[in-house]
Amino acid sequence: MLRCDDLMNGYHIWQDTDLFCFGIDAVLLAHYPALRRGDRILDLGTGFGPIPLILRAEAEKKGLIPGIRITGLELQHAAASLADQSVRENGLSEEIEIREGDIREAEALFGPASFSLITCNPPYMAAKEGLISENEGRAIARTEICCTLEDVIRISSRLLKMSGRLALIHRPHRLPEIFGLMRAHHLEPKRLRMVHPVSDAEPSMVLIEAVHGGRPYLTVEPPLVVYTKDRTYTEEIYRIYGWNPVSGGDTDRKS
Amino acid sequence: MLRCDDLMNGYHIWQDTDLFCFGIDAVLLAHYPALRRGDRILDLGTGFGPIPLILRAEAEKKGLIPGIRITGLELQHAAASLADQSVRENGLSEEIEIREGDIREAEALFGPASFSLITCNPPYMAAKEGLISENEGRAIARTEICCTLEDVIRISSRLLKMSGRLALIHRPHRLPEIFGLMRAHHLEPKRLRMVHPVSDAEPSMVLIEAVHGGRPYLTVEPPLVVYTKDRTYTEEIYRIYGWNPVSGGDTDRKS
Repeated sequence: MLRCDDLMNGYHIWQDTDLFCFGIDAVLLAHYPALRRGDRILDLGTGFGPIPLILRAEAEKKGLIPGIRITGLELQHAAASLADQSVRENGLSEEIEIREGDIREAEALFGPASFSLITCNPPYMAAKEGLISENEGRAIARTEICCTLEDVIRISSRLLKMSGRLALIHRPHRLPEIFGLMRAHHLEPKRLRMVHPVSDAEPSMVLIEAVHGGRPYLTVEPPLVVYTKDRTYTEEIYRIYGWNPVSGGDTDRKS
Repeated sequence: MLRCDDLMNGYHIWQDTDLFCFGIDAVLLAHYPALRRGDRILDLGTGFGPIPLILRAEAEKKGLIPGIRITGLELQHAAASLADQSVRENGLSEEIEIREGDIREAEALFGPASFSLITCNPPYMAAKEGLISENEGRAIARTEICCTLEDVIRISSRLLKMSGRLALIHRPHRLPEIFGLMRAHHLEPKRLRMVHPVSDAEPSMVLIEAVHGGRPYLTVEPPLVVYTKDRTYTEEIYRIYGWNPVSGGDTDRKS
């Protein structure tokens, strides 16, 4: 089913809920990297394009527009086509380009060392772990069928300039493997933030930023907590979603 | 200055404050691994022996005495000698042995695959990082002068049986390096817990347990928080220190 959601930053986004839906993961990842003047950004596996749309809005807030260019690369035709529609309808074709294509061919598409920032909300499940969805769109988005974690990291290393950043969100249980692959590909983990459903729970996700050719020193940041003990969003999550709990606003966010 | 402290678990410990003092790090580490029946335990760089003394008390609480053997290895003669005095005065010579010696010669001392659990609260600072204490005892305890992180991990891998565990406490900024060294030496990180001074601060320490020959899957546990917002210890820290804040008791713990 086609659905149009308000991104709470002035833009809307089209999704086909029969394929998959973007979640809080994409929103948190889009807010994680510190944007810089003139950034050339690539979002690998952009889906319906939430990350490019949020990055564009954040760049504007920080006075970095014009000057930033964002490319979203998506394998699935139906998703890429809706992402492109959202970009055009929001009037953002100047800064955002959606490309249909395979992550594993991204170097041929864009050329080496062509980006200063890569974001990726990759499939979390190794192909050998757990059940694979019978829905093909969902299976590709969630399980490493069409690209593995190693593909994402190896290709990011090729596509990033020196000192360029890779920002990832993933499951904490794969952290040793993530660090190992990053360092094998000259991407030094520099920032890490655990995402906890509530403050005293195990983290369900981890945000990581690595720097191409960076010096070893990891800053582990304070926990990012999603819900208070009353099961409402924490102030930080409200702030990320652009909703002010005092003045009111739309809380009906899908994640 | 010689000082005798109550460990709050029925034992006392001698320290020479002119050399160094054990801190909360050693206490947290000693409570981190789950002890098992028949464990053969080695504490690398045991200092004044707080970790063997706490492990012995925990083993007794869990009904694992008799059957557990704990060895503390310490390079500095004055510290090893005081640790041995504490063990004898507490009447624990049956289960705890203090050995004076160099971590780098531990394989020759004990033989390969001779332990099921190794604990280590190693020097945190790489020799190239920051200032080195002019006090030799403190310098050896804090900076990688006499043994590096790689020494600890390489030697632990040699000394552990298959499926044996290495429990470490360290600084979060070295996590990628720690994971990399562990995996290079067949020690798979299986549990990790960040230690935060207060709940919304960056972690100051990290507890890690790796398993020799383990299958990759890291469980990241809920944060361990040391202080409440009122700057009193959290309930979990009181529990670890064996002090009940309701019934009262000695809070004058040195860390």
